[in-house]
Amino acid sequence: MSSTYGKNIIVSIFGQSHSPAIGVSVDGLPAGIHIDTDRLQQFMDRRAPGRNEYSTARKEADIPEIISGLAGGVTCGAPLAAIIRNGDHRSKDYDNIRDIPRPSHADYTARIKYKGFEDASGGGHFSGRLTAPLCVAGGICIQVLEEKGIKIGSRIMQIGSIADRASDSAAETGWISQISSKAFPVIDDAKGAEMKQAIADAKAQGDSLGGIIECVIEGMPAGIGDPMFGGLENRISCAVFGVPAVRGIEFGAGFAAASMKGSEHNDPFRVQEGRIVTAKNDHGGILGGISSGMPVVFRVAIKPTPSIALTQESVSMSRMEDADLVIHGRHDPCIVPRALPCIEAAAAIAILDAYLEFKS
Amino acid sequence: MSSTYGKNIIVSIFGQSHSPAIGVSVDGLPAGIHIDTDRLQQFMDRRAPGRNEYSTARKEADIPEIISGLAGGVTCGAPLAAIIRNGDHRSKDYDNIRDIPRPSHADYTARIKYKGFEDASGGGHFSGRLTAPLCVAGGICIQVLEEKGIKIGSRIMQIGSIADRASDSAAETGWISQISSKAFPVIDDAKGAEMKQAIADAKAQGDSLGGIIECVIEGMPAGIGDPMFGGLENRISCAVFGVPAVRGIEFGAGFAAASMKGSEHNDPFRVQEGRIVTAKNDHGGILGGISSGMPVVFRVAIKPTPSIALTQESVSMSRMEDADLVIHGRHDPCIVPRALPCIEAAAAIAILDAYLEFKS
Amino acid sequence: MSSTYGKNIIVSIFGQSHSPAIGVSVDGLPAGIHIDTDRLQQFMDRRAPGRNEYSTARKEADIPEIISGLAGGVTCGAPLAAIIRNGDHRSKDYDNIRDIPRPSHADYTARIKYKGFEDASGGGHFSGRLTAPLCVAGGICIQVLEEKGIKIGSRIMQIGSIADRASDSAAETGWISQISSKAFPVIDDAKGAEMKQAIADAKAQGDSLGGIIECVIEGMPAGIGDPMFGGLENRISCAVFGVPAVRGIEFGAGFAAASMKGSEHNDPFRVQEGRIVTAKNDHGGILGGISSGMPVVFRVAIKPTPSIALTQESVSMSRMEDADLVIHGRHDPCIVPRALPCIEAAAAIAILDAYLEFKS
Amino acid sequence: MSSTYGKNIIVSIFGQSHSPAIGVSVDGLPAGIHIDTDRLQQFMDRRAPGRNEYSTARKEADIPEIISGLAGGVTCGAPLAAIIRNGDHRSKDYDNIRDIPRPSHADYTARIKYKGFEDASGGGHFSGRLTAPLCVAGGICIQVLEEKGIKIGSRIMQIGSIADRASDSAAETGWISQISSKAFPVIDDAKGAEMKQAIADAKAQGDSLGGIIECVIEGMPAGIGDPMFGGLENRISCAVFGVPAVRGIEFGAGFAAASMKGSEHNDPFRVQEGRIVTAKNDHGGILGGISSGMPVVFRVAIKPTPSIALTQESVSMSRMEDADLVIHGRHDPCIVPRALPCIEAAAAIAILDAYLEFKS
Repeated sequence: MSSTYGKNIIVSIFGQSHSPAIGVSVDGLPAGIHIDTDRLQQFMDRRAPGRNEYSTARKEADIPEIISGLAGGVTCGAPLAAIIRNGDHRSKDYDNIRDIPRPSHADYTARIKYKGFEDASGGGHFSGRLTAPLCVAGGICIQVLEEKGIKIGSRIMQIGSIADRASDSAAETGWISQISSKAFPVIDDAKGAEMKQAIADAKAQGDSLGGIIECVIEGMPAGIGDPMFGGLENRISCAVFGVPAVRGIEFGAGFAAASMKGSEHNDPFRVQEGRIVTAKNDHGGILGGISSGMPVVFRVAIKPTPSIALTQESVSMSRMEDADLVIHGRHDPCIVPRALPCIEAAAAIAILDAYLEFKS
Repeated sequence: MSSTYGKNIIVSIFGQSHSPAIGVSVDGLPAGIHIDTDRLQQFMDRRAPGRNEYSTARKEADIPEIISGLAGGVTCGAPLAAIIRNGDHRSKDYDNIRDIPRPSHADYTARIKYKGFEDASGGGHFSGRLTAPLCVAGGICIQVLEEKGIKIGSRIMQIGSIADRASDSAAETGWISQISSKAFPVIDDAKGAEMKQAIADAKAQGDSLGGIIECVIEGMPAGIGDPMFGGLENRISCAVFGVPAVRGIEFGAGFAAASMKGSEHNDPFRVQEGRIVTAKNDHGGILGGISSGMPVVFRVAIKPTPSIALTQESVSMSRMEDADLVIHGRHDPCIVPRALPCIEAAAAIAILDAYLEFKS
Repeated sequence: MSSTYGKNIIVSIFGQSHSPAIGVSVDGLPAGIHIDTDRLQQFMDRRAPGRNEYSTARKEADIPEIISGLAGGVTCGAPLAAIIRNGDHRSKDYDNIRDIPRPSHADYTARIKYKGFEDASGGGHFSGRLTAPLCVAGGICIQVLEEKGIKIGSRIMQIGSIADRASDSAAETGWISQISSKAFPVIDDAKGAEMKQAIADAKAQGDSLGGIIECVIEGMPAGIGDPMFGGLENRISCAVFGVPAVRGIEFGAGFAAASMKGSEHNDPFRVQEGRIVTAKNDHGGILGGISSGMPVVFRVAIKPTPSIALTQESVSMSRMEDADLVIHGRHDPCIVPRALPCIEAAAAIAILDAYLEFKS
Repeated sequence: MSSTYGKNIIVSIFGQSHSPAIGVSVDGLPAGIHIDTDRLQQFMDRRAPGRNEYSTARKEADIPEIISGLAGGVTCGAPLAAIIRNGDHRSKDYDNIRDIPRPSHADYTARIKYKGFEDASGGGHFSGRLTAPLCVAGGICIQVLEEKGIKIGSRIMQIGSIADRASDSAAETGWISQISSKAFPVIDDAKGAEMKQAIADAKAQGDSLGGIIECVIEGMPAGIGDPMFGGLENRISCAVFGVPAVRGIEFGAGFAAASMKGSEHNDPFRVQEGRIVTAKNDHGGILGGISSGMPVVFRVAIKPTPSIALTQESVSMSRMEDADLVIHGRHDPCIVPRALPCIEAAAAIAILDAYLEFKS
């Protein structure tokens, strides 16, 4: 079991790449929040495939139908559920992977775990397609959080070996929302152009690229999150690793903290306009698992799309011998741009879950 | 709420740095496992303070008393609980932090969250001392896992800017256990000597260092873990961020995957002696959240100890103005060596929890 | 939050009486179980309204569409989700209850809890209609349990003041399945005829009747369930009170045990054909929360349908004064016959959840 | 797994009848509540054995040591843990039950479940002794609830076939607190005297008696609890069945509702002094799982103590043949008086858990 997240809200995701539909229910949303379905659709569209040269051509409408949880467009306290019909089935594309598992996909491990009963078609429940209902749930959580003054944005920090410039989440406010709304969300658009070229090159080679996403949550009040296993890092990482292709996560200075001295890494407190803030934000807005009031900042590593056009080495499970594999079908040469809303969605779910913890 | 982890086993940690005792209960352990308390104590001793030049001088006996869960030294199916008495209270060392929060500690966020009712003494429930009961729980889980043929080890990969050499978790087997048993667990002992010198230098400067720990789980059968939020990455990261000072986690190639091409990063499957393996292990033993049978490999970034002897900038919360802070007491100039068993413990808890999921 | 049940399977129910659809997802079902949708439909039909003289005339098709979780008709390890479209909306029938809450319904408490944002139409998420997705989940769990040799049945034990004769769950085997398949499931059909007459009389008076349901689980292996809060009684009662109108539950001798002596109530063990059994079954198949191998027996009290045609006393919430209420629409004069499959469904969910606990 | 309860607070109980200690941790208590340890001890004393003629002579001090969770006697937000040392081990009394399970105890089912590794001594984790840490947790929750104006009391409603007179929880306020503080809490003391005589008679015969307990929660604000599986009935019953010997639970009119008409059972709403109340309280203060503001009323059936002095029929598990059993040691002829605080404790835990659900 696995596809259920949370404590104060419970997000249950269901569906397979080629099942009749995919969907999600979210139990525990506060009542009385107006849900703007147009904005939800815009959020979904950021994730949708087939919108430009660097994403797969599979064109799913990806229009969620909200089937419960609203009364007059407003959350009513009952679980909110939504489904998305699956349309563009091309399961013949997946015929060979039933015997020859795709490298760095879940085909092999699912086969072992479910003893051959797994739904192999299109990757089944392990397909990136399942991030669509994640985005429905997250897109709604984002709207709930905005009512509380909390905003979530993200940007592409790196594609392949090309990096955007560094940000300063302590000095600037509101920057992430502006970047986040760009079609290709980077700070330095010249770097963005290089990244797009790198994706095009990888596609031309039948290969793929990974990257790094930076996600920022602004407007977090201090005091959200809990010690030990209930910290914001625990909650966010548990949600974010629900997005396939995430291979790592770091908060604040992250891995760079390993080579800093304490005197460098420690964030001095300051009184600024009657509020306690920190002079910089290497702690990423979280101390002891609990928000400090500074922006929450984390980054995730996204692996290169495992489905590539090049011939790969694998095995035939029926014959128990090495075998070559050619993956047919259409695949994103780089999943990073479409992964941005998925990471925001996962973060929003985690943040709302922490926010809804009882406050005495 | 926060200090409770797991689904198939439930680990509940309690205690504060200066409460009468700290402890843990573990509900859900399989019955019939002999617990070797000597080995548990040896595991605890790896974490204990005051054992050498690079750790704090606070000398807690840290001998857990198992008060339930065993019958004749064997797990009996009832929750296993253990407590450790707190002895060496020096709460006067913490008087000034009641008003002036230590940078990059949880003093400030705990104050906000608990409205002044938090136990500030020694960091309270946020103290690194709470990793002692974590190690009790993890040390027991390690013994349970060994009965299933699963072994966990870890090494220091980096201290400050000094890195140990890379490992190859696909080519070698059993290496981590050997490294793990060293007093200073690195592959390259010359690098280890440099690291120790760097720690001594930092101490002399009244400063501190961070580092990176690599943890490896060998003997994992394929098929453990679940999709989406129940993946091994989700479970391990949720447990590992329970260790204070962890700022990031990555699996397999991790953040390096961001700059690899799909054709480089993908791990070819191979049939080897009748078993399906991968030729290398950039996937870190996990595909789709589920173990592949290859070693599970992850790395965590540990921040430099925030308690340093140097004067730091902070604020007085009562006067709401900037204020300098000098932290008294004894503190590790580098927590990394003592953090190794804590990371292993967190991993063991997560792995056992996943292992105990029903198999149809 | 509320509409989520379970640990080893997670059942998430969503929908309102008049939302576009109602439905359920079940995460954690074992892979490899063939689901017979015809049998599921037959099970659903036992609960469906409008089938005879003693149930409401609202005719919902109540045909669940399974939208995920199967591959080739067999559970594939992914969450199984199903939806049922809502058709026969008559929300004008509910106009007056927005201001004047129906006695012994959830109108008033939902208003308070959700601050006026609740979906009042048709009772919203509190409607008995939500037992349809419960029956979908339970009907599937029943099929999974049957693969393990576990069968669930129930009968009407009492309607109003008319009681069926007592059963002996220790002496007879397989009886409950036979009774359970009757159109009006009682042991003594003459008593059944009296019950039906009593329902018709209540209906003619614009009034309603309650009753008692006995549910029996046969084929339970010994050793299922857990101590304290994980006992079969805890799990079953937590699920069964999810069915609106349940006011009490008792196991084995139940409330009658209060007036028995220990020497009467204790069930002697016996060796019978090489198996350990009990001579009678006052313990209802559960000792210390764990199944003994004897049939699990419990009974639930069902209150009389609160929606009656008679004028009732209530209050106007807008005017904060006493007010009479006439409930329009069509309502069951006695919900007991349609509640039988709901109780079986709730029990099946609880039993499967307990069954799937890891066995060492 | 099993001995963990709750969502917003997590109560983890550990210990066996003859392990070094028993105890409990409670994670999630609000910070800032002063805990009166004298009152806690008085509450514990109501449950303690050996205080009068109708309870077992085993004299445990049963003084809990609070080892964490307080700072200056006030809850600090960290998990509160307490232990009670076990003293009076008489495990030789239990030698024969290792082979010959006691009827209507958990000896047999524990043996099957834990494959012979269970701690059989004194009933192990299934012993009634484990209600002591339950009372610690509950006694603390009671103090937290009182800060919110919520009071819990209980009375003996029936012992054997002798019943106290009925109460009217709608008409009277504060009555339960008065009854609850009596040494033998009944409304009608003459009936109480008869009950005590009946217990003495049963003891003289080497037999035992059961009974019924009524528990009332006053001062509940309306709007606490959740629909479906999160209702107060679900939560309370899940906690209350954690008390061994409970065989049934009913809310409000309970099983009597089965033979009432809707027009009798429905509770008319009334405006009274500007508040909405009900004219009577057959709904037991709960509608749709949510508190109505009327007193919450439930009753539990307690089975006669299964340990009796009379020779009983059982089986030898080693020889797989019928065998007589004589239970040595000292046992309560009627557990009901000592069970009152246990039921209150379980209810308090459930109510506080529901109370701490986020309110938007």
